[in-house]
Amino acid sequence: MGDTTSTPPVAELASATLTDDAAAGLALKHPFSDRVPIRSIVSRPDGGAGLAGQRIRVGGWVKTGREQGKGAFAFLEVNDGSCLANLQVMVDAGVVEEGLGYLVATGTSVSVEGLLKVPPEGAKQKIELRVEKVLHVGPVDPAKYPIPKTRLTLETLRDNIHFRARTNTISAIARIRNALAYATHSFFQENGFLYVHTPIITTSDCEGAGEMFQVTTIISEAEKLEKDLIKNPPPSEADVEAAKRVVTDKAEKVDKLKEAKAGKAKIGAAVAELNKGKEALSKLEERAKLKPGIPHKDGKIDYAADFFGRQAFLTVSGQLQVETYACAVGNVYTFGPTFRAENSHTSRHLAEFWMVEPEIAFADLQDDMNCAEAYVKYMSQWLLDKCSDDMELMAKLYDKVCIDRLRMVASTPFERISYTEAVEILEEAVKGGKKFENKVEWGIDLASEHERFLTEIKFQKPVIVYNYPKGIKAFYMRLNDDSKTVAAMDVLVPKVGELIGGSQREERYEVIKERILDMGLPLEPYEWYLDLRQFGTIKHSGFGLGFERMILFATGIENIRDVIPFPRYPDEHAILIRRQLGLKFMNTPSSTSLLNRQAIILLKYKMARSIRKLGNVVNGKPRTRLLHSP
Amino acid sequence: MGDTTSTPPVAELASATLTDDAAAGLALKHPFSDRVPIRSIVSRPDGGAGLAGQRIRVGGWVKTGREQGKGAFAFLEVNDGSCLANLQVMVDAGVVEEGLGYLVATGTSVSVEGLLKVPPEGAKQKIELRVEKVLHVGPVDPAKYPIPKTRLTLETLRDNIHFRARTNTISAIARIRNALAYATHSFFQENGFLYVHTPIITTSDCEGAGEMFQVTTIISEAEKLEKDLIKNPPPSEADVEAAKRVVTDKAEKVDKLKEAKAGKAKIGAAVAELNKGKEALSKLEERAKLKPGIPHKDGKIDYAADFFGRQAFLTVSGQLQVETYACAVGNVYTFGPTFRAENSHTSRHLAEFWMVEPEIAFADLQDDMNCAEAYVKYMSQWLLDKCSDDMELMAKLYDKVCIDRLRMVASTPFERISYTEAVEILEEAVKGGKKFENKVEWGIDLASEHERFLTEIKFQKPVIVYNYPKGIKAFYMRLNDDSKTVAAMDVLVPKVGELIGGSQREERYEVIKERILDMGLPLEPYEWYLDLRQFGTIKHSGFGLGFERMILFATGIENIRDVIPFPRYPDEHAILIRRQLGLKFMNTPSSTSLLNRQAIILLKYKMARSIRKLGNVVNGKPRTRLLHSP
Repeated sequence: MGDTTSTPPVAELASATLTDDAAAGLALKHPFSDRVPIRSIVSRPDGGAGLAGQRIRVGGWVKTGREQGKGAFAFLEVNDGSCLANLQVMVDAGVVEEGLGYLVATGTSVSVEGLLKVPPEGAKQKIELRVEKVLHVGPVDPAKYPIPKTRLTLETLRDNIHFRARTNTISAIARIRNALAYATHSFFQENGFLYVHTPIITTSDCEGAGEMFQVTTIISEAEKLEKDLIKNPPPSEADVEAAKRVVTDKAEKVDKLKEAKAGKAKIGAAVAELNKGKEALSKLEERAKLKPGIPHKDGKIDYAADFFGRQAFLTVSGQLQVETYACAVGNVYTFGPTFRAENSHTSRHLAEFWMVEPEIAFADLQDDMNCAEAYVKYMSQWLLDKCSDDMELMAKLYDKVCIDRLRMVASTPFERISYTEAVEILEEAVKGGKKFENKVEWGIDLASEHERFLTEIKFQKPVIVYNYPKGIKAFYMRLNDDSKTVAAMDVLVPKVGELIGGSQREERYEVIKERILDMGLPLEPYEWYLDLRQFGTIKHSGFGLGFERMILFATGIENIRDVIPFPRYPDEHAILIRRQLGLKFMNTPSSTSLLNRQAIILLKYKMARSIRKLGNVVNGKPRTRLLHSP
Repeated sequence: MGDTTSTPPVAELASATLTDDAAAGLALKHPFSDRVPIRSIVSRPDGGAGLAGQRIRVGGWVKTGREQGKGAFAFLEVNDGSCLANLQVMVDAGVVEEGLGYLVATGTSVSVEGLLKVPPEGAKQKIELRVEKVLHVGPVDPAKYPIPKTRLTLETLRDNIHFRARTNTISAIARIRNALAYATHSFFQENGFLYVHTPIITTSDCEGAGEMFQVTTIISEAEKLEKDLIKNPPPSEADVEAAKRVVTDKAEKVDKLKEAKAGKAKIGAAVAELNKGKEALSKLEERAKLKPGIPHKDGKIDYAADFFGRQAFLTVSGQLQVETYACAVGNVYTFGPTFRAENSHTSRHLAEFWMVEPEIAFADLQDDMNCAEAYVKYMSQWLLDKCSDDMELMAKLYDKVCIDRLRMVASTPFERISYTEAVEILEEAVKGGKKFENKVEWGIDLASEHERFLTEIKFQKPVIVYNYPKGIKAFYMRLNDDSKTVAAMDVLVPKVGELIGGSQREERYEVIKERILDMGLPLEPYEWYLDLRQFGTIKHSGFGLGFERMILFATGIENIRDVIPFPRYPDEHAILIRRQLGLKFMNTPSSTSLLNRQAIILLKYKMARSIRKLGNVVNGKPRTRLLHSP
């Protein structure tokens, strides 16, 4: 550590031959900020030592700070998020009017200018910054700041979602997530795929799987109408009758004029009057029909009055839509948010998550598997190349083998076995004494325990299982010649099990039509999809990768809520409050019966009521903060 | 054209010394597909001529096809979407069992294998493919296929959203959109920004601007409950009373046993019985409370029963959330979908669109403008470098000057003027006889006509206007020292006007708090946002770019619905049907009064009814196809 420095730095700084501001630090300065990212100093092969003598500005947050030499100077470990490592910053008491105590609290932001110097021998750092000018300080009251120097659990950090990116773990995950996102784009762009934005608001549920969120303005419109009707009550029946009489009178007048063979101008004027009356009547009649409340028709909500003129939902997958692009411009991929309104409280589910869905034209299941394998390897190698510091933190704190796992995946060919072979292997294992919770037999959907057995124990590397029974897979997967299986494939990896699910798509019009009907689905919503098979159909394949799953796989983090910046899950609000209140975490099973769900709803009512009664302050903080987390 | 070829190709092909399949075409073959992308043939500097003699496979769709030599062979212009250009494919009658007529219809998909040959002199093509083997054909019935050879209007193409990417224009836009998306990631990654996924489902409306879509499961849950209550009616009061009596009886029994000092085991058993009774009672009581319909409380919908335990919406901007990352890891950006439930039917608005929102730590308004200018220049240069063919198509068909505009933007420094200067310039123009619909005076929000005057007429290049009156801008923009203006900036470009809006953020806790209150906003929903100012606050800035606006600017396309794969807009369903029925397009103004909107709703009812009556076939197609566009 640099705290062995004994001479106050000011004299040294003053005597140093300073290079010109513009010349020295300029090459390092960020193009759109008045500072040098700490990464471009400390991540150099020499640890920054070669930059000694440069005058620069840095900005960041104090990780730890301490006064030394009886308050003569302070050492700050400053982090700016550009990398995991901090820059050691030394501030002389003479530079800060407010006093050094003002600077050392964890979380304090500082923007400082000074000279880079090689610290005395024996110091851990290769370089440190001796401050000449403090440009800005954003202080912190340590009594109130929720992110202290000591390490918090990831669960506690979730209660402070707007600050958690200031911790080593969450900022490292942010950099890893960013790297994987850019690796994704690089991989597909290098291979000639076009990035296609499929719609978020949609009306077709891709697999019938997963409950959907409804997107609507019908409630708010009804509320607006209700308010408006109170302010401006609709016309009474008498008003409408009066307007009708006006129209009748005017019509009679026109008739009379016509009978009397009056002049064109006269008749014209009377007709114009009549039309005005008719228009007024029609407006009155329309307004008279307005009723408060959500519009209904035949006992059901009338979605003709909703924003899109029909019921709309949040997408559960962009696959079907992106196929229209694959069947036009060739290789494409999506990378966007998808949604499931499943009431599951597990560490593996989110209501909102990101998916990558490539679709490859003129490609069969083999090509699909090749692409999936290459993509996962590419991402793994990318992390090894570009995020070694952050990955080392993950290995140190969360999963010792995560770096080895990435190396293995990047370099080992994936095992490929048919579903039938997989079931045989599992049955062998059962015979050998292995216990599974779920029964193994041909036809079952492989459970997570089966998948993890295959990839973690049996093969100890990624495994692609292909040719699944048609009964457990979606209608759009290509029927194999055996008429029993479909050309589907899942990529299973150690730590998370299923990472990718894909298939060759059924390109034969008659076959896919029959499959839809066989599954008891209506044809109507899929007619546009069937069109792709009826006009210029092609062989094509694709898959979906759950982006957060990939991050869990890479980092070894256990809970999916920690690898997305702003996790969305059922009752997140209630759960946060419950935790703050110290109430026991109610762990509802992932698939609750309707009755259970209703019981939960009732419980929520009660809880909300009791929380309201608790008043405004919880743990010294306004309760309302929780009501509006970002 | 190659139709001057007179010798049938088969003999030639047979006599050619064929190189081995694996060796020759392999270098060109797509890694995940059994074909060579046409781009890698025709986009070579030699137009593909250097590849003559290679045996390859290609796949794509026939743009135009014609039989020649009295049906002896056919020429197909095949496009696979990898680039604008087609590959000329020559098929000898002997190669196709079904006959050449089967191949030539526009839209037919073909997967073929053959030899690349230089066509006879005088041909337009530098290379053509002589087919030896037809691997697959996806036929088209030209009478039914909605995308004929002749050019359709963009409006008509919108009616065939699932096929429109097969046209030159829409596929070119897809490639341009892809290029701009990748340029966006490349620009920010090169400059050390982290890509952050901000939430789509949210509860904080960033600017109060724009109406929001509600995200809910409360309607579907109510419907499920309703069905369940019909199947399993809730317990009657008598049932509950009976259960209460059981509990009382059992409690009495326990009391009696205790009085009689019975053995522990006996009492224990009775207590267990009592608890069972209590549990049954509580379940009954809960179920007895269940009522059909959306749950209400105090006359309002009770969102405690909704999925997130509170009301939720689709995001209108990720800015506030991404600031939490900027104030932790430095430079960040979002790139994701955003939503506005505005009932506007203009060619510039969508209900769902994509936004890019960078946020720069330790950056002021000057840095922000530098970043915005560099980003727009970078994208412009990127398109010039990578999409020249597609841009030429845009110039030819839609906007003659679009390429010149990109060149100018890429190379010319943007003009920068203060809002006050901008108003002075506009006032000068008015004095000089220029007519504007909207009055010009200090304090107004610049209208589109003003913005376009500044960028298209006055400066004829991009203009950045900065320091706007605080009254017309959002609360989070930094108050300038004059206390009248805020550090906001808009980038105006020819063709679309405002392309970017940004600001330096107010980092001073007391100032931003006052601004929120001044604007009549509640503090409560912003407490987490204020926290960023209270703990380690930093100077920071950012902006938002409407991604579709950038595509309009680049291509010169007029309607925003043509530059996003699946446009979402109010009543898209009704509008599609109206067009198909040949009804007049009802152009509602972008800001309709409440009464108007109600009238529209009524009109929709009527229309939906009349359409239902029309039966199942419209223009020879099932009506239901429109009900479920992708």
